[in-house]
Amino acid sequence: MVVVMKPGTDRPDIDRLVERFQSMGLEVGITTGVGCTILGLVGDTTAVDMDKISIHPHVERVMRVQEPYKKANRKFHPADTVVEVGAAKIGGGSFSVIAGPCSVESEAQIIEVARDVKQAGAALLRGGAFKPRTSPYSFQGMGLEGLDLLTEARAATGLPIVSEIMAPRYVDVFEEKVDVVQVGARNMQNFDLLKEVGRMSKPVLLKRGLSNSYEEWIMSAEYIMAGGNENVILCERGIRTFETYTRNTLDVSAIPAVKQMSHLPVVVDPSHSAGMYWMVEPLAMAAIAAGADGLLIEVHNDPPHAKCDGQQSLTPENFGHLMAKVGTLVDIMNKTLVK
Amino acid sequence: MVVVMKPGTDRPDIDRLVERFQSMGLEVGITTGVGCTILGLVGDTTAVDMDKISIHPHVERVMRVQEPYKKANRKFHPADTVVEVGAAKIGGGSFSVIAGPCSVESEAQIIEVARDVKQAGAALLRGGAFKPRTSPYSFQGMGLEGLDLLTEARAATGLPIVSEIMAPRYVDVFEEKVDVVQVGARNMQNFDLLKEVGRMSKPVLLKRGLSNSYEEWIMSAEYIMAGGNENVILCERGIRTFETYTRNTLDVSAIPAVKQMSHLPVVVDPSHSAGMYWMVEPLAMAAIAAGADGLLIEVHNDPPHAKCDGQQSLTPENFGHLMAKVGTLVDIMNKTLVK
Amino acid sequence: MVVVMKPGTDRPDIDRLVERFQSMGLEVGITTGVGCTILGLVGDTTAVDMDKISIHPHVERVMRVQEPYKKANRKFHPADTVVEVGAAKIGGGSFSVIAGPCSVESEAQIIEVARDVKQAGAALLRGGAFKPRTSPYSFQGMGLEGLDLLTEARAATGLPIVSEIMAPRYVDVFEEKVDVVQVGARNMQNFDLLKEVGRMSKPVLLKRGLSNSYEEWIMSAEYIMAGGNENVILCERGIRTFETYTRNTLDVSAIPAVKQMSHLPVVVDPSHSAGMYWMVEPLAMAAIAAGADGLLIEVHNDPPHAKCDGQQSLTPENFGHLMAKVGTLVDIMNKTLVK
Amino acid sequence: MVVVMKPGTDRPDIDRLVERFQSMGLEVGITTGVGCTILGLVGDTTAVDMDKISIHPHVERVMRVQEPYKKANRKFHPADTVVEVGAAKIGGGSFSVIAGPCSVESEAQIIEVARDVKQAGAALLRGGAFKPRTSPYSFQGMGLEGLDLLTEARAATGLPIVSEIMAPRYVDVFEEKVDVVQVGARNMQNFDLLKEVGRMSKPVLLKRGLSNSYEEWIMSAEYIMAGGNENVILCERGIRTFETYTRNTLDVSAIPAVKQMSHLPVVVDPSHSAGMYWMVEPLAMAAIAAGADGLLIEVHNDPPHAKCDGQQSLTPENFGHLMAKVGTLVDIMNKTLVK
Repeated sequence: MVVVMKPGTDRPDIDRLVERFQSMGLEVGITTGVGCTILGLVGDTTAVDMDKISIHPHVERVMRVQEPYKKANRKFHPADTVVEVGAAKIGGGSFSVIAGPCSVESEAQIIEVARDVKQAGAALLRGGAFKPRTSPYSFQGMGLEGLDLLTEARAATGLPIVSEIMAPRYVDVFEEKVDVVQVGARNMQNFDLLKEVGRMSKPVLLKRGLSNSYEEWIMSAEYIMAGGNENVILCERGIRTFETYTRNTLDVSAIPAVKQMSHLPVVVDPSHSAGMYWMVEPLAMAAIAAGADGLLIEVHNDPPHAKCDGQQSLTPENFGHLMAKVGTLVDIMNKTLVK
Repeated sequence: MVVVMKPGTDRPDIDRLVERFQSMGLEVGITTGVGCTILGLVGDTTAVDMDKISIHPHVERVMRVQEPYKKANRKFHPADTVVEVGAAKIGGGSFSVIAGPCSVESEAQIIEVARDVKQAGAALLRGGAFKPRTSPYSFQGMGLEGLDLLTEARAATGLPIVSEIMAPRYVDVFEEKVDVVQVGARNMQNFDLLKEVGRMSKPVLLKRGLSNSYEEWIMSAEYIMAGGNENVILCERGIRTFETYTRNTLDVSAIPAVKQMSHLPVVVDPSHSAGMYWMVEPLAMAAIAAGADGLLIEVHNDPPHAKCDGQQSLTPENFGHLMAKVGTLVDIMNKTLVK
Repeated sequence: MVVVMKPGTDRPDIDRLVERFQSMGLEVGITTGVGCTILGLVGDTTAVDMDKISIHPHVERVMRVQEPYKKANRKFHPADTVVEVGAAKIGGGSFSVIAGPCSVESEAQIIEVARDVKQAGAALLRGGAFKPRTSPYSFQGMGLEGLDLLTEARAATGLPIVSEIMAPRYVDVFEEKVDVVQVGARNMQNFDLLKEVGRMSKPVLLKRGLSNSYEEWIMSAEYIMAGGNENVILCERGIRTFETYTRNTLDVSAIPAVKQMSHLPVVVDPSHSAGMYWMVEPLAMAAIAAGADGLLIEVHNDPPHAKCDGQQSLTPENFGHLMAKVGTLVDIMNKTLVK
Repeated sequence: MVVVMKPGTDRPDIDRLVERFQSMGLEVGITTGVGCTILGLVGDTTAVDMDKISIHPHVERVMRVQEPYKKANRKFHPADTVVEVGAAKIGGGSFSVIAGPCSVESEAQIIEVARDVKQAGAALLRGGAFKPRTSPYSFQGMGLEGLDLLTEARAATGLPIVSEIMAPRYVDVFEEKVDVVQVGARNMQNFDLLKEVGRMSKPVLLKRGLSNSYEEWIMSAEYIMAGGNENVILCERGIRTFETYTRNTLDVSAIPAVKQMSHLPVVVDPSHSAGMYWMVEPLAMAAIAAGADGLLIEVHNDPPHAKCDGQQSLTPENFGHLMAKVGTLVDIMNKTLVK
């Protein structure tokens, strides 16, 4: 941590602040020049509240030098985390595709899609039972019944299932029925929910919030890991920018950046990123080329009649075409596509 | 709703789509010219899913013409909603200031601050019992004990209390103890929580999310109102932009814009907007001048030792100075400052 | 400047870097702890290229501590700059309103508007002769003829004139005919143009770019001042954000922030900020309340037939109503409205 | 174009507006329902000023249906534009890499880098003679001397040269000496400069502005094309967002989106996108996978001593490694790498 003193601060005032830091167990170095004094603080600064120091009357500015996260920090855990779910593996050179409909609509629908995506090479099945919708008047998902239909689709195909949890009260039923628990973009900083899924034994797929920084995203993973659940998969799904042509702006830089900062695997959701089915392929390919460990893709047997997100869903046929290209590119990237 | 057909679509294809809309009870007007056909749809289009229409093979684009919200829509409820909490009134020409510390820290602290802000002219007391913190290692609030201390501060001063709810499981205790339930910016689209507070009898102060549009914000109010709770106060608290000098960017345009779109009252939180105590006054003044119905201001008896947000908290003394200016400006704006 | 070394860097490597900084005339302080070494650099660091240091193989991160601007820096020039143009004064407690049409359209139009705005209390007349338009097919302004009509309006009313320069080749004619030279938002980092207006004797009104930070904005002022022209007026006109209801998002925080960073006066353009005439009043009032030194307002005698920006222009009548309120608020803010 | 009337507008008022549109040669369709009337306008609406209509007293909203650009519009020119520069080809299945230093620093430097990048497979040489720098105190480029050194490097290697023009007065010398004229991000809406390069015979590489939409970017290309120069290459170089870890956020979605909207080729600059040399490879690969027609990459023989942008420059050795991967991926994408 670095503390910049206000110009003209007297030496005794500086010394008092230095003593305060030293009493917290920190090493303090002082650099003094004409009109500027800088304090360098080294040691365990995670307990130091930057905001408090910043309002000290003689302090001009405080800057953090070390990351505020530990368990998710690659500096302390250099090796890639590999999340294993049944036969599927995400991270450390293994690449898995998670596919399925935006929402579970019926037994026939989810089983048909599950069979189709498995056949095309998906390693996990996704399907929404509880849906976060902007309008209270839109379809809100089938709820618990949807979860049961997902378990039937798992039984029929062997694919592990991924579904979104929206409230702490469903932790037990998700623990029992689901293989990977998804936390949606709008709940990325629902800290109560993060604490709850931190106590679960199932891996968590944590979507990046619409306008959250890499650091905030990793801090939300840290919440889950601090609760004891270290199997966190980060999922980039597009951020909000000024551009309105696409629903969101896929931030491919997040992939190399977050992998530099953290050891956790990073997957990409090209369906929500652009919000248009014809952009799924170029964005999926870009994600793989930038180093992603997996993809999350919306596939629906009948997009024009999907209860949600039909405009961004692929048909099973188009998903099959995409998977052929995915396989070639994953290979070029020296990764293994898990089927 | 407006549907733009792809260039070159044949008349029979257009007719089939028109019949589909007519079967939904909509009036359809057709405008045809060289290379472009536009369908105008009038009637109750809230049940029409734009996304589904947009993937119809002959459709180029769909544009909504009417607002997707009803209960919060000023078109259907022209008169300003006035939220009354004890003697305090917000909206319709009444202006109230909500003040208090970021978090409740002790009985002595909250009672002292409550007395100070009441004396200076605040009409409601705010205080956090449950705190949404970016880091799992930061102080998370006193929890239920904090709520009890707030009720003591209310007993000591008569000020109604405002506190943030972070999870559905606390709905009953908030219903019992708190006068206004705050939903934080990070939970603005925590739809499960919105549904729960929609069933409460207490007014809800709904903060705007970090990067949520006016329409999304009003749609979240619509969730609460659709549940039966029509006493919603909207709170602008700064949005996330590229500028990093301030913690957030206060969007004063939100005040006239949202008041044009909706009949709900709008208050402003200048403390979180900039994140710096010395900016609270100019931003508070700007908010009043732009037409706000109230302010939410962080006041702490000892900012340098506050457990959170000390850098943006006013001392009681500075809050007193600010309130003198607030009173003058509220007067100029032809509103009544409720004390 | 602060340099954070990579964990595990050997002492000799650190020493070599320290010597390099010392050879540049800088004081260097070293703070060392477990796994982290921080160098504090003090002295004239304006010549140090952060980017170069950041790629040094042993350097993890470089952070600037001092501002990169000098002439515009309030630290070195604590007193407010007051820009005087004829009888008009902007800054240091003097508040002036600049009003007029988006573009000069005819002699009759500009003289009529000039008379109207003068009567209502404007201190300067604005009018565009050269118009920056997004489309090559839109009206591009009357050019030099427009400038001549502005000088006639000045002769008729005594109001100094403000007009936008779009290319270096017009520097001489603007020097001759115009009283304040405006640099538009889209040219805020047209460095060639900034250098040219830096050689002029006329004050410059520098609009903030659509997505430029406070620091970049002040650095563009520094370009002009480095050329010898220290009469720079900064103009906030709304920034680009994710919100699409308004054309731009007025950043009122810019007013107190930039006035803290710099001694230059700050005016606000509420017309371009929202892009809607009915928002001009609340935004103008917010700007004054936040501490602005002046306003730039579009007024047109016949907005529905204006050649550009009619939707955000006030009629002379509405401008008159606004000016009454402006006068009251400027007074409350302890400033003097110059007429 | 679609015009939504205010609720309650009388039929005669609607009819008067309809007649006004008809007198402009437009087809008008009227859809009327309870509380809402929509006018559909078809025909050549490029001359209709949306802003003017939007302030008509009975109009609630105006929405554009057709694109405001013609020459750059893929609807009217379905075939890909291929820009040829000597042996290099960009677009229509041909992929070229433009490489070289941020700025020309000396004869030895530019010739050495030119030889290195040619050897590694670059098809064009880039080098800055005039540099847009945020600070007036930073190195501003070698100017005309730099252009001469570039021509020497061309003579030595046969590589066509790409360099940035910053002011209209250099049009003649660029026409004479340079093969591709670059317009920088900060000048994307410097309309005077766009008009000037529109009169040149040399292809123009037009960078996207920091916060400009796809449509604005294409409209700037339209300015150049309207002047007669139809050889425009669009260059995505990262946009400004809330994320500060990277200098800019590469928007890969721009590639498929803009290629859908326009027939012009799109290249990507991964060096400026992130601003960090170690991110160049993943971003370059992502760009190719998303469908880019070329890359613009900063290569410097001695990055730690580069006069600008050293932190984002590759060494010739690393550029060689990158080019091997580029070749493989371009091949997979069924494009031809031009060397």
